[in-house]
Amino acid sequence: MARSPAGESVITRAVRILAAFDPDATVLSLSEVSRRAGLPLATTARMVAEMTRHGLLARDDQRRVLIGTRMWELAERASPVKDLREAALQHMGDLHSVVGHSTQLGVLEDDEVLFVERLTTPGSVVNITKIAGRLPPNASSAGLVLLAHAPEGTRERVLRGALASFTPHTITRERDLRVELAEVRHRGFAFCRGHIHPDAAGIAVPVWRDGQVIAAMGLIVPNDDEAWSYSRPLMLAGLALSRTLSSAPDPKKGQEPDRATGK
Amino acid sequence: MARSPAGESVITRAVRILAAFDPDATVLSLSEVSRRAGLPLATTARMVAEMTRHGLLARDDQRRVLIGTRMWELAERASPVKDLREAALQHMGDLHSVVGHSTQLGVLEDDEVLFVERLTTPGSVVNITKIAGRLPPNASSAGLVLLAHAPEGTRERVLRGALASFTPHTITRERDLRVELAEVRHRGFAFCRGHIHPDAAGIAVPVWRDGQVIAAMGLIVPNDDEAWSYSRPLMLAGLALSRTLSSAPDPKKGQEPDRATGK
Repeated sequence: MARSPAGESVITRAVRILAAFDPDATVLSLSEVSRRAGLPLATTARMVAEMTRHGLLARDDQRRVLIGTRMWELAERASPVKDLREAALQHMGDLHSVVGHSTQLGVLEDDEVLFVERLTTPGSVVNITKIAGRLPPNASSAGLVLLAHAPEGTRERVLRGALASFTPHTITRERDLRVELAEVRHRGFAFCRGHIHPDAAGIAVPVWRDGQVIAAMGLIVPNDDEAWSYSRPLMLAGLALSRTLSSAPDPKKGQEPDRATGK
Repeated sequence: MARSPAGESVITRAVRILAAFDPDATVLSLSEVSRRAGLPLATTARMVAEMTRHGLLARDDQRRVLIGTRMWELAERASPVKDLREAALQHMGDLHSVVGHSTQLGVLEDDEVLFVERLTTPGSVVNITKIAGRLPPNASSAGLVLLAHAPEGTRERVLRGALASFTPHTITRERDLRVELAEVRHRGFAFCRGHIHPDAAGIAVPVWRDGQVIAAMGLIVPNDDEAWSYSRPLMLAGLALSRTLSSAPDPKKGQEPDRATGK
């Protein structure tokens, strides 16, 4: 691989440029890309030009830089979370229409919760998760569910690492977290009042496939006396999704026949 | 940029490797990647190893190659279609729960319809669209809507190009297509009985933002005498989504305040 003077390969630099964009910064000037990627402006300009030619990036009418639709297409059309999201959307839609609050789906990725889908209602209670956004696992209800059912190695690494804090209610002590995770396993769901924002309560349930927890489905509801009651419809939706996933063929175990052509 | 003996840059080769994956081939052996990407096996092995280190690709327990969750995250979290999809999902969910048939959303990309979202019901009528899948614009109802409202240059290029055929009902003559596009503009929706599969009818409506058609929302319903009646709820959902989009601030015109923190 060709390397820059700093010893970085082209792929590494391309990833740094892509990682400059996030849900709060979807459109950036060239100099912002350069600064956020930590790359010289000339290198950035050259890389952006080539990545734009391939549709990985695009330029808007003010010449600002954004992720290209082609990049999204390449990532999405064979995405490892595609089947999970597609199965989940139906159940999330049902749940959302019944409870009327933000509904989301998270997976554990690099010891953080990566949110892979979200349905929101304008004006619903505060919710800082975004699709393809991340949260620390100790702070979020989805994170507690995923940690509670994670392989022991992952759980111990997170428990002994730095535990992020958003409010005085966030669980930040290793011992408290161990007690809570046992409770989540016992109770069947995680319930967090004001752990991330004082006005919001998060509830999350495990999503099972073939005996393993592969995701957490959650609700963000107002932090009041009614919050707990949302656990019931959420648990039902989680069970329904788990049943759908466990009866569906695993796409990694071979190609499904194409339903359209029967081939 | 470093170039291979064939004169291809690293970025070009990386894109060829990513493009080897598609909705029908989400997990590939290294030799399949090599063959589909048209790259030598040694080059493929070296590139796959580096892309895997960055999470752009991943290996499963049988050492087969798949798109990495990190690649999906990088593309998705600042995706240009993210806001459209997020706004659309609520209206698509409502529509789907009312009509009970596959509901989808397409945009025009490189003169093809790229489907950016889809809600399906198990056992619903055949539907060959997939999220991040593509269809020729002359054959699909979403494509006819997008073509009918496309810039003249785009429309003429497609009209004069090769027109794909799926069934004897697919519109493949330039003249017939011109008549149909005028009808779609006049009627307000596209209605295609058996253009892609004899058992299915596609209906699609334009999605407007600030006076421009930016997407098409569609239904796939059984190809029977009732098919036409689905145009009414679909038109309503299309209008509702257009209203949501036109009242929402354009994310390209500057950062929205963060609803969670008010900053």
